[in-house]
Amino acid sequence: MNKGRLLLVPNTLDLGAAEVELQDVLPLGVIRQAAALAHWAAEDARSARAFLKRVAAVVPLARPLQETSIRELPRPRKGSREPVPAAEWQALLAPALAGHDLGLISEAGLPAVADPGAALVEAAHAAGVPVLPLAGASSLLLALAASGLNGQSFAFVGYLPQDAAARTARLRELESTSRRLQQTQLIIETPYRNAALLAALLASLAPETRLSV
Amino acid sequence: MNKGRLLLVPNTLDLGAAEVELQDVLPLGVIRQAAALAHWAAEDARSARAFLKRVAAVVPLARPLQETSIRELPRPRKGSREPVPAAEWQALLAPALAGHDLGLISEAGLPAVADPGAALVEAAHAAGVPVLPLAGASSLLLALAASGLNGQSFAFVGYLPQDAAARTARLRELESTSRRLQQTQLIIETPYRNAALLAALLASLAPETRLSV
Repeated sequence: MNKGRLLLVPNTLDLGAAEVELQDVLPLGVIRQAAALAHWAAEDARSARAFLKRVAAVVPLARPLQETSIRELPRPRKGSREPVPAAEWQALLAPALAGHDLGLISEAGLPAVADPGAALVEAAHAAGVPVLPLAGASSLLLALAASGLNGQSFAFVGYLPQDAAARTARLRELESTSRRLQQTQLIIETPYRNAALLAALLASLAPETRLSV
Repeated sequence: MNKGRLLLVPNTLDLGAAEVELQDVLPLGVIRQAAALAHWAAEDARSARAFLKRVAAVVPLARPLQETSIRELPRPRKGSREPVPAAEWQALLAPALAGHDLGLISEAGLPAVADPGAALVEAAHAAGVPVLPLAGASSLLLALAASGLNGQSFAFVGYLPQDAAARTARLRELESTSRRLQQTQLIIETPYRNAALLAALLASLAPETRLSV
Protein backbone atom coordinates (compact mmCIF):
# COMPACT_ATOMS: atom_id res chain seq x y z
CA MET A 1 0.00 0.00 0.00
CA ASN A 2 1.23 3.47 -0.81
CA LYS A 3 2.01 5.65 2.16
CA GLY A 4 0.33 9.01 2.62
CA ARG A 5 2.41 12.16 2.87
CA LEU A 6 3.13 14.48 5.76
CA LEU A 7 2.10 17.97 4.62
CA LEU A 8 3.57 20.88 6.59
CA VAL A 9 0.70 23.38 6.53
CA PRO A 10 1.47 27.02 7.36
CA ASN A 11 -0.96 28.79 9.67
CA THR A 12 -1.63 32.53 9.67
CA LEU A 13 0.34 34.92 11.91
CA ASP A 14 -2.69 36.67 13.45
CA LEU A 15 -2.84 34.56 16.62
CA GLY A 16 -3.93 36.88 19.45
CA ALA A 17 -4.40 39.80 17.05
CA ALA A 18 -7.21 41.00 14.78
CA GLU A 19 -8.06 38.23 12.33
CA VAL A 20 -6.92 38.86 8.77
CA GLU A 21 -8.57 37.60 5.61
CA LEU A 22 -7.24 34.06 5.03
CA GLN A 23 -6.65 34.69 1.32
CA ASP A 24 -4.55 37.74 2.14
CA VAL A 25 -1.88 35.59 3.76
CA LEU A 26 -2.27 32.00 2.50
CA PRO A 27 -2.07 30.83 -1.11
CA LEU A 28 -5.29 29.38 -2.54
CA GLY A 29 -3.37 26.19 -3.38
CA VAL A 30 -2.46 25.76 0.30
CA ILE A 31 -6.06 26.40 1.39
CA ARG A 32 -7.23 23.75 -1.11
CA GLN A 33 -4.71 21.20 0.14
CA ALA A 34 -5.71 21.88 3.75
CA ALA A 35 -9.40 21.45 2.88
CA ALA A 36 -8.66 18.00 1.43
CA LEU A 37 -7.03 16.60 4.59
CA ALA A 38 -8.98 14.39 7.00
CA HIS A 39 -6.07 13.71 9.38
CA TRP A 40 -4.12 16.29 11.34
CA ALA A 41 -1.36 16.48 13.90
CA ALA A 42 -1.59 19.86 15.63
CA GLU A 43 0.32 21.90 18.18
CA ASP A 44 -3.10 22.82 19.56
CA ALA A 45 -6.37 21.10 18.56
CA ARG A 46 -8.60 24.10 19.26
CA SER A 47 -6.59 26.45 17.05
CA ALA A 48 -6.40 23.77 14.35
CA ARG A 49 -10.21 23.58 14.33
CA ALA A 50 -10.40 27.37 14.16
CA PHE A 51 -8.02 27.27 11.18
CA LEU A 52 -10.16 24.65 9.41
CA LYS A 53 -13.28 26.79 9.91
CA ARG A 54 -11.48 29.65 8.14
CA VAL A 55 -10.42 27.24 5.39
CA ALA A 56 -14.01 25.99 5.01
CA ALA A 57 -15.20 29.54 4.40
CA VAL A 58 -13.03 29.59 1.25
CA VAL A 59 -13.01 25.96 0.05
CA PRO A 60 -15.48 23.30 1.28
CA LEU A 61 -13.81 20.68 3.48
CA ALA A 62 -13.61 17.19 1.96
CA ARG A 63 -15.02 15.83 5.20
CA PRO A 64 -17.09 17.61 7.91
CA LEU A 65 -15.01 19.08 10.72
CA GLN A 66 -16.48 16.73 13.34
CA GLU A 67 -15.29 13.77 11.25
CA THR A 68 -11.80 15.22 10.84
CA SER A 69 -9.20 13.61 13.06
CA ILE A 70 -7.04 16.12 14.95
CA ARG A 71 -4.42 14.78 17.34
CA GLU A 72 -2.22 17.05 19.42
CA LEU A 73 1.54 16.72 19.39
CA PRO A 74 2.86 15.06 22.55
CA ARG A 75 4.54 17.42 25.03
CA PRO A 76 7.34 16.66 27.47
CA ARG A 77 5.95 15.99 30.98
CA LYS A 78 5.93 19.09 33.19
CA GLY A 79 9.21 19.57 35.00
CA SER A 80 10.76 16.71 33.05
CA ARG A 81 13.73 17.15 30.77
CA GLU A 82 13.16 13.74 29.22
CA PRO A 83 12.33 13.99 25.53
CA VAL A 84 9.01 12.59 24.33
CA PRO A 85 9.53 8.87 23.54
CA ALA A 86 10.00 8.21 19.81
CA ALA A 87 7.07 5.77 19.87
CA GLU A 88 4.67 8.65 20.57
CA TRP A 89 5.81 10.46 17.44
CA GLN A 90 5.59 7.28 15.39
CA ALA A 91 2.02 6.70 16.64
CA LEU A 92 1.00 10.07 15.18
CA LEU A 93 2.12 8.85 11.76
CA ALA A 94 -0.45 6.01 11.74
CA PRO A 95 -2.77 7.71 9.18
CA ALA A 96 0.14 8.25 6.76
CA LEU A 97 1.29 4.65 7.19
CA ALA A 98 -2.29 3.62 6.41
CA GLY A 99 -2.20 5.56 3.14
CA HIS A 100 -3.78 8.89 4.14
CA ASP A 101 -2.19 12.31 3.81
CA LEU A 102 -1.55 13.87 7.21
CA GLY A 103 -1.32 17.60 7.93
CA LEU A 104 0.98 19.12 10.55
CA ILE A 105 -0.03 22.57 11.78
CA SER A 106 1.13 25.04 14.43
CA GLU A 107 -0.83 27.69 16.27
CA ALA A 108 0.82 30.25 14.00
CA GLY A 109 3.30 30.29 11.15
CA LEU A 110 5.35 27.36 9.88
CA PRO A 111 5.31 24.07 11.77
CA ALA A 112 8.63 22.72 13.03
CA VAL A 113 10.35 26.12 12.89
CA ALA A 114 10.47 27.89 16.27
CA ASP A 115 7.61 25.54 17.07
CA PRO A 116 7.17 21.86 17.91
CA GLY A 117 6.95 19.29 15.13
CA ALA A 118 10.53 18.65 13.99
CA ALA A 119 10.47 15.31 15.83
CA LEU A 120 7.39 14.29 13.82
CA VAL A 121 9.13 15.26 10.58
CA GLU A 122 12.16 13.25 11.65
CA ALA A 123 9.93 10.25 12.42
CA ALA A 124 8.29 10.62 8.99
CA HIS A 125 11.68 10.51 7.25
CA ALA A 126 12.64 7.45 9.31
CA ALA A 127 9.37 5.72 8.34
CA GLY A 128 9.69 6.56 4.65
CA VAL A 129 6.72 8.96 4.72
CA PRO A 130 7.27 11.72 2.13
CA VAL A 131 7.37 15.22 3.66
CA LEU A 132 5.94 18.15 1.70
CA PRO A 133 6.36 21.71 3.04
CA LEU A 134 3.65 24.07 1.73
CA ALA A 135 4.42 27.72 0.98
CA GLY A 136 3.76 29.97 3.94
CA ALA A 137 5.20 32.82 5.90
CA SER A 138 7.37 32.71 9.00
CA SER A 139 7.12 35.58 11.45
CA LEU A 140 10.88 35.31 12.01
CA LEU A 141 11.81 35.99 8.41
CA LEU A 142 9.16 38.65 7.81
CA ALA A 143 10.54 40.47 10.85
CA LEU A 144 14.09 40.01 9.58
CA ALA A 145 13.21 41.22 6.06
CA ALA A 146 11.43 44.28 7.45
CA SER A 147 14.24 45.15 9.87
CA GLY A 148 16.89 46.22 7.39
CA LEU A 149 19.40 44.22 9.44
CA ASN A 150 21.76 41.70 7.89
CA GLY A 151 19.73 39.01 6.10
CA GLN A 152 22.81 37.28 4.61
CA SER A 153 23.87 35.89 7.98
CA PHE A 154 21.52 35.40 10.89
CA ALA A 155 20.68 33.06 13.74
CA PHE A 156 17.46 32.26 15.54
CA VAL A 157 18.20 31.60 19.21
CA GLY A 158 14.71 31.29 20.74
CA TYR A 159 13.89 32.68 24.16
CA LEU A 160 16.23 34.41 26.58
CA PRO A 161 16.48 33.21 30.20
CA GLN A 162 13.85 34.73 32.51
CA ASP A 163 16.26 35.34 35.38
CA ALA A 164 17.56 38.92 35.08
CA ALA A 165 21.26 38.19 35.64
CA ALA A 166 21.22 35.19 33.31
CA ARG A 167 19.33 37.23 30.72
CA THR A 168 21.89 40.01 30.79
CA ALA A 169 24.75 37.52 30.47
CA ARG A 170 23.02 35.87 27.50
CA LEU A 171 22.39 39.25 25.84
CA ARG A 172 26.07 40.18 26.16
CA GLU A 173 27.00 36.84 24.62
CA LEU A 174 24.58 37.33 21.69
CA GLU A 175 25.78 40.89 21.17
CA SER A 176 29.36 39.66 21.05
CA THR A 177 28.43 36.90 18.58
CA SER A 178 26.55 39.36 16.36
CA ARG A 179 29.61 41.60 16.23
CA ARG A 180 32.19 38.83 15.77
CA LEU A 181 30.29 36.96 13.04
CA GLN A 182 28.38 39.96 11.61
CA GLN A 183 25.34 37.78 12.26
CA THR A 184 21.86 39.13 13.10
CA GLN A 185 20.53 37.43 16.24
CA LEU A 186 16.78 36.75 16.32
CA ILE A 187 15.07 36.25 19.66
CA ILE A 188 11.40 35.76 20.56
CA GLU A 189 9.37 36.56 23.65
CA THR A 190 5.81 36.00 24.86
CA PRO A 191 3.73 39.22 24.66
CA TYR A 192 3.28 39.71 28.42
CA ARG A 193 7.07 39.78 28.92
CA ASN A 194 7.80 42.14 26.02
CA ALA A 195 8.09 45.28 28.16
CA ALA A 196 10.57 43.65 30.56
CA LEU A 197 12.61 42.30 27.65
CA LEU A 198 12.74 45.67 25.90
CA ALA A 199 13.91 47.34 29.12
CA ALA A 200 16.62 44.68 29.51
CA LEU A 201 17.74 45.15 25.89
CA LEU A 202 18.03 48.92 26.29
CA ALA A 203 19.89 48.57 29.59
CA SER A 204 22.31 45.86 28.43
CA LEU A 205 23.25 46.52 24.83
CA ALA A 206 25.87 48.93 23.59
CA PRO A 207 24.56 52.18 22.07
CA GLU A 208 25.93 51.24 18.62
CA THR A 209 24.17 47.87 18.57
CA ARG A 210 21.23 48.02 16.19
CA LEU A 211 17.95 46.65 17.43
CA SER A 212 14.69 45.96 15.59
CA VAL A 213 11.45 45.30 17.51
CA MET B 1 2.61 64.99 1.45
CA ASN B 2 2.17 61.47 2.74
CA LYS B 3 5.00 59.12 1.93
CA GLY B 4 4.38 55.89 0.07
CA ARG B 5 5.31 52.58 1.64
CA LEU B 6 8.03 50.08 0.80
CA LEU B 7 6.27 46.75 0.24
CA LEU B 8 8.46 43.64 0.49
CA VAL B 9 6.90 41.38 -2.14
CA PRO B 10 7.71 37.66 -2.00
CA ASN B 11 8.49 35.98 -5.29
CA THR B 12 7.90 32.30 -6.08
CA LEU B 13 10.59 29.67 -5.49
CA ASP B 14 10.43 28.07 -8.95
CA LEU B 15 13.31 30.04 -10.49
CA GLY B 16 15.15 27.69 -12.84
CA ALA B 17 12.57 24.92 -12.28
CA ALA B 18 9.17 24.06 -13.79
CA GLU B 19 6.83 27.01 -13.26
CA VAL B 20 4.16 26.45 -10.62
CA GLU B 21 0.69 27.99 -10.57
CA LEU B 22 1.07 31.44 -8.95
CA GLN B 23 -1.99 30.95 -6.73
CA ASP B 24 -0.53 27.70 -5.38
CA VAL B 25 2.30 29.56 -3.69
CA LEU B 26 1.28 33.22 -3.28
CA PRO B 27 -1.73 34.55 -1.37
CA LEU B 28 -4.36 36.30 -3.48
CA GLY B 29 -3.96 39.35 -1.24
CA VAL B 30 -0.26 39.55 -2.13
CA ILE B 31 -1.01 39.14 -5.85
CA ARG B 32 -3.54 41.99 -5.61
CA GLN B 33 -1.09 44.28 -3.83
CA ALA B 34 1.60 43.50 -6.41
CA ALA B 35 -0.84 44.26 -9.26
CA ALA B 36 -1.51 47.69 -7.77
CA LEU B 37 2.14 48.81 -7.73
CA ALA B 38 3.53 51.06 -10.45
CA HIS B 39 7.03 51.40 -8.98
CA TRP B 40 9.48 48.59 -8.29
CA ALA B 41 12.99 48.07 -7.04
CA ALA B 42 14.15 44.65 -8.22
CA GLU B 43 17.12 42.35 -7.81
CA ASP B 44 16.70 41.62 -11.52
CA ALA B 45 14.44 43.64 -13.85
CA ARG B 46 13.81 40.80 -16.30
CA SER B 47 12.59 38.40 -13.62
CA ALA B 48 10.50 41.18 -12.05
CA ARG B 49 8.75 41.67 -15.41
CA ALA B 50 8.20 37.90 -15.67
CA PHE B 51 6.68 37.96 -12.18
CA LEU B 52 4.34 40.82 -13.11
CA LYS B 53 3.17 38.90 -16.20
CA ARG B 54 2.21 36.01 -13.94
CA VAL B 55 0.46 38.46 -11.60
CA ALA B 56 -1.43 40.00 -14.54
CA ALA B 57 -2.80 36.57 -15.48
CA VAL B 58 -4.59 36.51 -12.10
CA VAL B 59 -5.34 40.18 -11.35
CA PRO B 60 -5.20 42.97 -13.98
CA LEU B 61 -2.28 45.33 -13.40
CA ALA B 62 -3.26 48.84 -12.34
CA ARG B 63 -0.94 50.19 -15.03
CA PRO B 64 0.34 48.44 -18.20
CA LEU B 65 3.67 46.67 -17.75
CA GLN B 66 5.47 49.01 -20.16
CA GLU B 67 4.41 51.98 -17.99
CA THR B 68 5.55 50.27 -14.80
CA SER B 69 8.85 51.59 -13.46
CA ILE B 70 11.33 48.82 -12.54
CA ARG B 71 14.75 49.86 -11.28
CA GLU B 72 17.42 47.33 -10.42
CA LEU B 73 19.16 47.36 -7.05
CA PRO B 74 22.70 48.76 -7.29
CA ARG B 75 25.47 46.17 -7.05
CA PRO B 76 28.97 46.59 -5.66
CA ARG B 77 31.47 47.20 -8.48
CA LYS B 78 33.16 44.02 -9.67
CA GLY B 79 36.25 43.23 -7.66
CA SER B 80 35.48 46.07 -5.26
CA ARG B 81 34.79 45.47 -1.60
CA GLU B 82 33.43 48.98 -1.21
CA PRO B 83 29.76 48.95 -0.24
CA VAL B 84 27.29 50.67 -2.56
CA PRO B 85 27.11 54.36 -1.55
CA ALA B 86 24.07 55.15 0.64
CA ALA B 87 22.97 57.81 -1.86
CA GLU B 88 22.26 55.10 -4.46
CA TRP B 89 19.88 53.36 -2.08
CA GLN B 90 18.21 56.63 -1.17
CA ALA B 91 17.71 57.42 -4.87
CA LEU B 92 15.70 54.22 -5.25
CA LEU B 93 13.28 55.49 -2.62
CA ALA B 94 12.30 58.52 -4.74
CA PRO B 95 8.84 57.13 -5.68
CA ALA B 96 8.00 56.47 -2.00
CA LEU B 97 9.19 59.94 -1.01
CA ALA B 98 6.92 61.29 -3.77
CA GLY B 99 3.93 59.50 -2.23
CA HIS B 100 3.83 56.26 -4.27
CA ASP B 101 4.00 52.74 -2.88
CA LEU B 102 7.19 50.99 -3.98
CA GLY B 103 7.65 47.22 -4.28
CA LEU B 104 10.90 45.41 -3.55
CA ILE B 105 11.26 42.00 -5.17
CA SER B 106 13.94 39.34 -5.50
CA GLU B 107 14.46 36.75 -8.22
CA ALA B 108 13.01 34.18 -5.82
CA GLY B 109 11.63 34.07 -2.30
CA LEU B 110 11.69 36.90 0.23
CA PRO B 111 13.60 40.09 -0.53
CA ALA B 112 16.36 41.13 1.90
CA VAL B 113 16.75 37.60 3.31
CA ALA B 114 19.65 35.67 1.76
CA ASP B 115 19.22 38.21 -1.03
CA PRO B 116 20.03 41.86 -1.62
CA GLY B 117 17.69 44.58 -0.42
CA ALA B 118 18.38 44.98 3.30
CA ALA B 119 20.23 48.23 2.57
CA LEU B 120 17.13 49.58 0.82
CA VAL B 121 14.98 48.62 3.81
CA GLU B 122 17.48 50.34 6.09
CA ALA B 123 17.37 53.47 3.91
CA ALA B 124 13.55 53.38 4.04
CA HIS B 125 13.58 53.31 7.85
CA ALA B 126 16.07 56.18 7.89
CA ALA B 127 13.85 58.21 5.53
CA GLY B 128 10.66 57.50 7.50
CA VAL B 129 9.19 55.35 4.72
CA PRO B 130 6.93 52.67 6.28
CA VAL B 131 8.07 49.13 5.48
CA LEU B 132 5.45 46.40 4.99
CA PRO B 133 6.55 42.78 4.56
CA LEU B 134 3.97 40.69 2.67
CA ALA B 135 3.37 37.04 3.53
CA GLY B 136 5.50 34.70 1.47
CA ALA B 137 7.68 31.66 1.69
CA SER B 138 11.43 31.46 2.17
CA SER B 139 13.26 28.48 0.68
CA LEU B 140 15.51 28.45 3.76
CA LEU B 141 12.70 27.88 6.23
CA LEU B 142 10.74 25.47 4.04
CA ALA B 143 13.92 23.39 3.76
CA LEU B 144 14.48 23.63 7.51
CA ALA B 145 10.86 22.67 8.32
CA ALA B 146 11.02 19.69 5.95
CA SER B 147 14.40 18.50 7.25
CA GLY B 148 13.33 17.34 10.70
CA LEU B 149 16.48 19.04 12.05
CA ASN B 150 16.39 21.43 15.00
CA GLY B 151 14.08 24.35 14.16
CA GLN B 152 14.31 25.89 17.66
CA SER B 153 17.89 27.05 17.09
CA PHE B 154 19.41 27.59 13.67
CA ALA B 155 21.74 29.84 11.73
CA PHE B 156 21.92 30.81 8.07
CA VAL B 157 25.55 31.22 7.06
CA GLY B 158 25.31 31.74 3.29
CA TYR B 159 27.84 30.26 0.88
CA LEU B 160 30.93 28.25 1.75
CA PRO B 161 34.33 29.25 0.36
CA GLN B 162 35.06 27.84 -3.12
CA ASP B 163 38.66 26.90 -2.35
CA ALA B 164 38.71 23.26 -1.23
CA ALA B 165 40.97 23.68 1.81
CA ALA B 166 39.12 26.77 3.00
CA ARG B 167 35.80 25.01 2.44
CA THR B 168 36.83 22.03 4.54
CA ALA B 169 38.04 24.30 7.34
CA ARG B 170 34.76 26.22 7.27
CA LEU B 171 32.73 22.99 7.32
CA ARG B 172 34.63 21.76 10.37
CA GLU B 173 33.97 25.09 12.08
CA LEU B 174 30.23 24.93 11.29
CA GLU B 175 30.04 21.31 12.42
CA SER B 176 31.68 22.25 15.71
CA THR B 177 29.27 25.18 16.15
CA SER B 178 26.26 22.98 15.40
CA ARG B 179 27.38 20.53 18.07
CA ARG B 180 28.37 23.10 20.68
CA LEU B 181 25.22 25.25 20.36
CA GLN B 182 22.84 22.47 19.21
CA GLN B 183 22.22 24.84 16.30
CA THR B 184 21.23 23.73 12.79
CA GLN B 185 23.54 25.38 10.22
CA LEU B 186 21.92 26.35 6.90
CA ILE B 187 24.13 26.83 3.85
CA ILE B 188 23.27 27.55 0.22
CA GLU B 189 25.00 26.76 -3.05
CA THR B 190 24.47 27.55 -6.72
CA PRO B 191 23.09 24.52 -8.60
CA TYR B 192 26.17 23.89 -10.77
CA ARG B 193 28.35 23.49 -7.68
CA ASN B 194 25.95 21.22 -5.79
CA ALA B 195 27.72 17.97 -6.67
CA ALA B 196 31.12 19.28 -5.53
CA LEU B 197 29.60 20.62 -2.31
CA LEU B 198 27.87 17.33 -1.54
CA ALA B 199 31.10 15.43 -2.08
CA ALA B 200 32.91 17.85 0.26
CA LEU B 201 30.19 17.47 2.91
CA LEU B 202 30.38 13.68 2.80
CA ALA B 203 34.17 13.73 2.92
CA SER B 204 34.49 16.28 5.73
CA LEU B 205 31.67 15.74 8.19
CA ALA B 206 31.60 13.16 10.97
CA PRO B 207 29.38 10.10 10.37
CA GLU B 208 27.05 11.09 13.23
CA THR B 209 26.46 14.59 11.87
CA ARG B 210 22.98 14.81 10.37
CA LEU B 211 22.68 16.37 6.95
CA SER B 212 19.60 17.39 4.96
CA VAL B 213 19.86 18.21 1.24
